[in-house]
Amino acid sequence: MALSEFDLIAHYFTRPVSRGDVVLGVGDDAAIVQLPPGLQLVTAVDTLVGGRHFPDETSAFDIGWKALAVNLSDLAAMGATPAWATLSLTVPEVDEAWLQVFADGFYTLADQYQVALVGGDTTRGPLAVSVQLQGGIEPGRALRRAAAESGHALFVSGTLGDAACALQQLQAGVDVDEDMLARLNRPQPRVALGQALAGVAASCIDISDGLLADLGHILAASQCGATLWPERLPASPALQELPYEQRLACQYNGGDDYELCFTVAPENCAALQALVQQHALDVTEIGVIDSQPGVRGQYEDGRVEVLQSHGFDHFRSGGND
Amino acid sequence: MALSEFDLIAHYFTRPVSRGDVVLGVGDDAAIVQLPPGLQLVTAVDTLVGGRHFPDETSAFDIGWKALAVNLSDLAAMGATPAWATLSLTVPEVDEAWLQVFADGFYTLADQYQVALVGGDTTRGPLAVSVQLQGGIEPGRALRRAAAESGHALFVSGTLGDAACALQQLQAGVDVDEDMLARLNRPQPRVALGQALAGVAASCIDISDGLLADLGHILAASQCGATLWPERLPASPALQELPYEQRLACQYNGGDDYELCFTVAPENCAALQALVQQHALDVTEIGVIDSQPGVRGQYEDGRVEVLQSHGFDHFRSGGND
Repeated sequence: MALSEFDLIAHYFTRPVSRGDVVLGVGDDAAIVQLPPGLQLVTAVDTLVGGRHFPDETSAFDIGWKALAVNLSDLAAMGATPAWATLSLTVPEVDEAWLQVFADGFYTLADQYQVALVGGDTTRGPLAVSVQLQGGIEPGRALRRAAAESGHALFVSGTLGDAACALQQLQAGVDVDEDMLARLNRPQPRVALGQALAGVAASCIDISDGLLADLGHILAASQCGATLWPERLPASPALQELPYEQRLACQYNGGDDYELCFTVAPENCAALQALVQQHALDVTEIGVIDSQPGVRGQYEDGRVEVLQSHGFDHFRSGGND
Repeated sequence: MALSEFDLIAHYFTRPVSRGDVVLGVGDDAAIVQLPPGLQLVTAVDTLVGGRHFPDETSAFDIGWKALAVNLSDLAAMGATPAWATLSLTVPEVDEAWLQVFADGFYTLADQYQVALVGGDTTRGPLAVSVQLQGGIEPGRALRRAAAESGHALFVSGTLGDAACALQQLQAGVDVDEDMLARLNRPQPRVALGQALAGVAASCIDISDGLLADLGHILAASQCGATLWPERLPASPALQELPYEQRLACQYNGGDDYELCFTVAPENCAALQALVQQHALDVTEIGVIDSQPGVRGQYEDGRVEVLQSHGFDHFRSGGND
C-alpha cells in the first residue's frame, strides 16, 4: 500500500525518544509516560496561528522552534521541569521540505531541554501549530500568578521590547536588526531561571503579551497593584538606540519577550541575591507591588503616570497563555 | 478596565472543578494536577477542523461534545481512565451565544466522565478545536496497537457505519435518520468497555477513520493480517435497511464510529466471555488475525475477496489518531 499523506507526515515526528520515562510514544491511540514519584504534573498548551502569532514569511524552522518555545516559557513561569510534548499541526498542504525543516526547528529546541515528542495529530487547514507540554514539579513549589503581595519587589529577566521592535521593522519593510529578529523568531525560554526561582520568588508569569498585560494578570490574580520605574526597564543595546517613547512602547506593550516577570517577598530578597550571584542570573528589579489597584510609572524626576496596557492581544485566552 | 475578548472567552471555560486532584486549574501559565500514585500518565490529542471533521452546519453543542468525545475514545482504546483536559479553541469571531452552547456541549460530556478542564488557550482564526486529554493507567495494562498475533479473535463493539451513512445523507440533502445523526454528532466513547478490556484484550484501537483503515493500523503495528466475516459486521436496524453494498461501504470505510476494534488471544476468550456476561457488553466477533499480510473478507458462501481501505482520510496523522 502506498504511503498516504498522513503516513508521510508521521515520518517527520517519530524520531527516537531520548527519555527513559516514555513508555509508549508516537504511533498509538495515546502516549504513556511515567511521571517521577513525588512530582505533580504540570501542563501548558499554546497555539500559534500563521499570520497572527508569527509573520507569514517566518521560516518553517522558526515556526517549529517557537511553537515549542512558548510552551517551555509557560512551564518556566511555573518553575516546572519540562518533559513530554504533543503536537497538533494543521497545514494547508503536505510540503515535505517544509515539514522536514519545521521538525528540525521543533526538535532542535526539544533536544536542548530533553523534551520528548510523544504524540500528536495532523490536520489539513490554515497553518496552525498547537503544542501541549507536560512536566513535573514538587508539590508546593509552583510559582503562581496569585501569590503577589504589597511590598514584594518586582523583577524581570533579560531585556524587554526587542521582539516587538523587530516585528515593527518587519511590518514597516525596513532593515531588521538580526539580534532583535532572533528574539522574535527563536525566543529562548527561561526554563533554568524559573526552576531556580521556585521556592524563592512568590508569583511569576512569562511575558508573551507585553509587560503591562502580563503584569496585569499577576495583579488581577493577586488583587494588588504595582509601581514601575520606567528608566530601569532593561533594554538591549539595539533597543537603546531607539527614540525613548518608541522604546518604552515596545517594552510596555510589545509581546513575544518570553522573559519572566516575578515578585519576591522582602524576606526572600537576600536569597534571590545569592541565587543571582551563584548562577549569574540576568534579572533586573523594575518596581514594587503595592496595594493600590492599577500600574503606575514613577520616573526618576518624581513624575508619576498611570500606565495602561494597550495590549498585544492576539486573541489569546486567559487559560494557559 | 473593560473585559477584553479573551476575558470573555475565559469566562466560559472556568467552571468549578469537580475533581480533588486538580491543584491549579484554568487561569495560570500552566495547570497542575496530582496523578494517583502507581499510575502511568496517558495522553491523547485530537483536532477537529470545521468543514472537515464535522459539517459546517453542526451545532456548537455537538462540536463541543465531539471534540472531547474523540479524545475520550482514544483513551478508551488504551483501556485508560480519563481525568483532565485542556482545550485549544480557534474561532473566527467572539460569538458569546455560540461559545456558551459550545461550552455546554463540552461540559455535558466532561461531567459524564468526571473530566476536569484545567487549561487551554483561545485564538482567532478558522474554526478548529484541539482537545488534549490526560488520564491514568496501571503499568502494563495498556491496550496497544502492536499486540495482535496470528490466531487472535477479532472483535468490534456496538455497530458500525451509522455515522458515515448520516454524513452521506446530510451531503445528499435527504432526510437524515435521527439515530444515525446522533452517532455522527454525539458519539459515545466506549470508556467503560476499554477499561474492562484492559488485561483481557491484547491490542485495541478506536474506529475513527473506518474499520479497514483502523484495523490496518493494528495489523501494520503487529505485522500480521486478518480475515473478516462481512456478514457478521454489526449494523443498526436503520443501516440494515440500506442496500447491502452501500451498507458494507459505510462499515468498511466510513469514519466516526468511535467503536473499539480489539483482538483477544485464544486463552483469554473465556475471560472475555465472562466479562460480556457480567457487564452485558455489546461486542461482536467479526474475524480472526492471521499471519498473511492484508485483510480478506470471507463470505458465508465461501467466497474470499481482498479488502482495501478506501480511507476516510481526513488528513489525520499517525500520531494519536
